[in-house]
Amino acid sequence: MSLLIVGTVAFDAIETPFGKTNKIIGGAATYISLAASYFTKQLSIVSVIGDDFPQDYIKLLKDRFINLDGLQIKKGEKSFFWAGKYHNDMNTRDTLITELNVLADFDPVVPENMKEPDFVMLGNLTPIVQKKVIDQLKKRPKLIVMDTMNFWMNVAWDDLIQTISMVDVLTINDEEARQLTKEYSLARAAQKILTMGPKYLIIKKGEHGALLFDENNMFFAPAIPLEEVFDPTGAGDTFAGGFIGFLDKTKNISFENMKRAIIYGSALASFTVEKFGTEKLLELNHKEIEERIQMFVGLVKFSVSSENN
Amino acid sequence: MSLLIVGTVAFDAIETPFGKTNKIIGGAATYISLAASYFTKQLSIVSVIGDDFPQDYIKLLKDRFINLDGLQIKKGEKSFFWAGKYHNDMNTRDTLITELNVLADFDPVVPENMKEPDFVMLGNLTPIVQKKVIDQLKKRPKLIVMDTMNFWMNVAWDDLIQTISMVDVLTINDEEARQLTKEYSLARAAQKILTMGPKYLIIKKGEHGALLFDENNMFFAPAIPLEEVFDPTGAGDTFAGGFIGFLDKTKNISFENMKRAIIYGSALASFTVEKFGTEKLLELNHKEIEERIQMFVGLVKFSVSSENN
Repeated sequence: MSLLIVGTVAFDAIETPFGKTNKIIGGAATYISLAASYFTKQLSIVSVIGDDFPQDYIKLLKDRFINLDGLQIKKGEKSFFWAGKYHNDMNTRDTLITELNVLADFDPVVPENMKEPDFVMLGNLTPIVQKKVIDQLKKRPKLIVMDTMNFWMNVAWDDLIQTISMVDVLTINDEEARQLTKEYSLARAAQKILTMGPKYLIIKKGEHGALLFDENNMFFAPAIPLEEVFDPTGAGDTFAGGFIGFLDKTKNISFENMKRAIIYGSALASFTVEKFGTEKLLELNHKEIEERIQMFVGLVKFSVSSENN
Repeated sequence: MSLLIVGTVAFDAIETPFGKTNKIIGGAATYISLAASYFTKQLSIVSVIGDDFPQDYIKLLKDRFINLDGLQIKKGEKSFFWAGKYHNDMNTRDTLITELNVLADFDPVVPENMKEPDFVMLGNLTPIVQKKVIDQLKKRPKLIVMDTMNFWMNVAWDDLIQTISMVDVLTINDEEARQLTKEYSLARAAQKILTMGPKYLIIKKGEHGALLFDENNMFFAPAIPLEEVFDPTGAGDTFAGGFIGFLDKTKNISFENMKRAIIYGSALASFTVEKFGTEKLLELNHKEIEERIQMFVGLVKFSVSSENN
């Protein structure tokens, strides 16, 4: 098994200035796996849903060769449900409903044939659940990537720090990097986080791009200024999925290749926000993705020598 | 005359979490001209000061071959004075004192021998004063660049719109671009501003870099994640000065060369914030600047082909 993804598979109900949805398919593992499926066909999810989760949604994942042997379906229980409303600036949102349901006592079980993945993506989830997945692996993967959020810093600090110490790459946003380290400067925050366990750090800055750090290197990935952000839900998870999917496809964890992976992740995320939920992410083709990649190439290309006018 | 700079020459008193200054030399034209002086020795300032302005400060500008024939010195009057205090995040500040003094009735006079500049940089100032300078020019310069700020949108909207319609390049920050156009999306805001007169737009995003737009092109210039921002005062003006100075030196206003100019402006600004006021900007050498430029080159360099590891 090549890529193991842990995270929520859930219902989302989304309201933006452009409209609102009923309960649609959402969850970190959903976005991560859909994004990664553009690069690799050897991926599996460890997650949990209730028996209220539609077969259509499950089929949608299976159709993309996403292995669901690790997806627990709890009889008589309900799936995790989140409802949120975005403000006019699309950068801030209010959570309207959070029903943990099956997630409340989720005990992840990694199926036997998935215990030796090359890559692991721990989507945003209780740090204890993330750690339980690592503990079940039979050998150290090439790379364990962990996403998290400020919520866990507030309610599960010690668990969070312990899980962070076990991973190779941490992805968080700029405010979270500051909260985690009490450093305002992102350069300083990065240095601190790189002493906490991870060898690499990705700081996501939304419309301002992303930063990749290791001990000796720094990379600034741009974001494309979009005319319309229709629904930001899932952008961070899509980014993570594109990143880890590209790494799994190329099997190369050099800093140079991680840069490429970040560009691919950013490109996929730039599609996700164009429509509600997973809609856009389900209809992409490789030509579109490569065209978007070329936009990123063009966006930051400059030469300090004046040979090219 | 090659480069004409209009803006304040003033006193600043600055307080940051790292310390505070007495009245030191400040003002948009000061930072712009000092930054530009690393690239061109044919530059002159149109501004106004009182007779309280120290000869040492005037000498400091003259020593860098900055022509001060257009600098009015008002007998018995006091120079413009601004005092501000930065918050811990260094991104927000409170204005403690604003004494307009000589600026209150500033009537700019462009000396006869400066009325045919190649490049004009209109530092942040009343839009009417900026317009009066343009009106005195004998022929259209290669490029007129205008900086402004939200304050003028609040108190002098019509004048601002008129002056904007007369320039080639507008530089503003992201929030101001939104305020000016009532568009949240910067891509949309840019499109609107490019119908208001300017052929080019630079959106400054501070620690997140800068964007350059023309009708058909978009460029995302990174900012270096700095470990320490000591004093942000003058960073935007330094950026503008580096930008226009580089253009004046190279006499090339292609989009490709403007990208380079933005990188040079960003590099100089990244130095300015390392010390209080103009201190760092006064002690740079070209080797340091070129090394910083190479950091920018490295920061965004990636290749989507996997030939280079």
